[in-house]
Amino acid sequence: MKREDYGLAFMLQYENVAWYEDGMVKILDRRIYPTRIEFVTCNTHHEVAQAIADMVTQSAGPYTAASMGMALAAYECKSLNMSQQVEYMKEAAYRLSHARPTTVNRMTLITEGCLKVAIKAMEEGKKVDEAIFLHTIDSMNRRYSKIEEVAHHLVPMFPNKGNVMTQCFGETIVGMMLRVAKEKKKDIKLFCPETRPYLQGGRLTASVCHDQGFDVTVITDNMPAFTMKTKGIDVFTSAADSICLDGHIVNKVGTMQIAIAAHYFGVPYFVTGIPDEALKSIDQVKIEERNPQEVLEFRGIKTTLDGVKGYYPAFDITPPKLISGVVTDRGIFSPYDLKRYYEEQEEKFW
Amino acid sequence: MKREDYGLAFMLQYENVAWYEDGMVKILDRRIYPTRIEFVTCNTHHEVAQAIADMVTQSAGPYTAASMGMALAAYECKSLNMSQQVEYMKEAAYRLSHARPTTVNRMTLITEGCLKVAIKAMEEGKKVDEAIFLHTIDSMNRRYSKIEEVAHHLVPMFPNKGNVMTQCFGETIVGMMLRVAKEKKKDIKLFCPETRPYLQGGRLTASVCHDQGFDVTVITDNMPAFTMKTKGIDVFTSAADSICLDGHIVNKVGTMQIAIAAHYFGVPYFVTGIPDEALKSIDQVKIEERNPQEVLEFRGIKTTLDGVKGYYPAFDITPPKLISGVVTDRGIFSPYDLKRYYEEQEEKFW
Repeated sequence: MKREDYGLAFMLQYENVAWYEDGMVKILDRRIYPTRIEFVTCNTHHEVAQAIADMVTQSAGPYTAASMGMALAAYECKSLNMSQQVEYMKEAAYRLSHARPTTVNRMTLITEGCLKVAIKAMEEGKKVDEAIFLHTIDSMNRRYSKIEEVAHHLVPMFPNKGNVMTQCFGETIVGMMLRVAKEKKKDIKLFCPETRPYLQGGRLTASVCHDQGFDVTVITDNMPAFTMKTKGIDVFTSAADSICLDGHIVNKVGTMQIAIAAHYFGVPYFVTGIPDEALKSIDQVKIEERNPQEVLEFRGIKTTLDGVKGYYPAFDITPPKLISGVVTDRGIFSPYDLKRYYEEQEEKFW
Repeated sequence: MKREDYGLAFMLQYENVAWYEDGMVKILDRRIYPTRIEFVTCNTHHEVAQAIADMVTQSAGPYTAASMGMALAAYECKSLNMSQQVEYMKEAAYRLSHARPTTVNRMTLITEGCLKVAIKAMEEGKKVDEAIFLHTIDSMNRRYSKIEEVAHHLVPMFPNKGNVMTQCFGETIVGMMLRVAKEKKKDIKLFCPETRPYLQGGRLTASVCHDQGFDVTVITDNMPAFTMKTKGIDVFTSAADSICLDGHIVNKVGTMQIAIAAHYFGVPYFVTGIPDEALKSIDQVKIEERNPQEVLEFRGIKTTLDGVKGYYPAFDITPPKLISGVVTDRGIFSPYDLKRYYEEQEEKFW
């Protein structure tokens, strides 16, 4: 089976973020992409967790990396007996899902899913690592088709000709949204704030937009408000690392600031993604603070004097009053009405 | 006469931005300071104008550089006859004052001042370059004492214990404000957005704060709004490259965005400086757009794919409704009442 055979997962080239093979997980190093294309090779699931913590991959990348890490953990413990294997895998699930504090909720859903697959495979005498690997590919494809639905609901919010601002790297949704925009013949130009300190907006989002043939402009993170004024931004959109049912969303730091500017200029802001059912309120989310050193340098070049402090909240919180709509696979919801996403799903079950 | 003898101009070490001596102007290269301390040596006033355009020095630095450049121009043409010298100096004045479009107004006042000094020196048979050099030092000292007054009006707006956010490098006012804050025993912590792409906030403002013994934290330009929320910023303050009489101010790009966030969170924003009498309205100001390449790299390291565009407005415009007060040498004015600054001055003349 070739990688291309795994479906949508590899139709989007740039999504090739993490891959389990031959007792190791290879992760595309997005900290330096696209300047250089290099992979970090992890020989244990501990190394996968560390790579996630070190932001080798970001956005939705850690979800795939953690799942592939669970396959690796299965490989690591394959010579143990079943109950020892389960114990080992549980520890691995905890370690991988807790690599970064803000996404523990989604990551736990993923690693718990892998754990169930592992136990089933053990009971059926199948290769556990392979079962988790295939499950990961399945999950990716399922996520991709959901996100494709999201894109179909988002793109009609774009003008037929106009300017769209993004924030950070919306991963799958960026590629999907551009594919749908092209289908719908939307003549849009993209404006991507660069997203310091890791520059995901400049390096990743803008590169994807350019690869897909769109006119794309990078600005520094102090320019979104003025760009709204001078260039006439029609829509601001971003993904989110958490979408709480109370309408608060958590995304890469800077999102709230752009949302405030969008509100000031009357530009609608659409958040994309699936609400997190377990997150009833924003109080359940812990905003990760990363090593302040990371904001005091750029690829190792110091940007201030020794002794100056740094502050690096990796995410920020945008309140519902700044959000025009949460665009899900099942349509656009008011941020004040997110519970309905799950209520409607229950109805459908009946 | 030693440099130290020139008064306040050299009491503030970091203000050592441009110096005319022996037929050349040396300019501290602020693009790399404080990582390295290097000077750009200009052998002609054309090179000074180019250095200003290339942002070797920024903030108030170009005012001194242009003035020292006029001394150099006088040196260049000293063997010509008087009317030729005047012609040569007029051309130099135009070239130096127009090195960057947004500050043409203030720069013209400076170079015209030098021109008057030059003509007077010629008439009196004095060395023209020396006369302009001494005039420059005088102007710097006059500006410093005015700015010292500004600082005395600004600092009472700070809490006795609290957090102050800055934007870009406020040059003289930063040093003065900290000196006065120390005198007044204000226990303040500074938060400085780094100010991409040149990082003046990280490299210059934060370094000055640290040098003067203050607790200072650098954040990236996507963090001011969230920092206001999490750290509790009490006051936002910045200098301005232009203060129009209609209450609009022009400052380093990012200022408006922080002002919008400050407004959203109810944080007062104080602009420091002297209103520009000639700028009746913001319509008279041209916002400089710099080479887009500068936002697509960091010290030569590319941050996105070839083919991605960049947009680099060097400044933005903050409207009066976002400004709590314009802090001048003669007190704090409402941004809606700036004409009074000059009306009152007229009264004083009577």
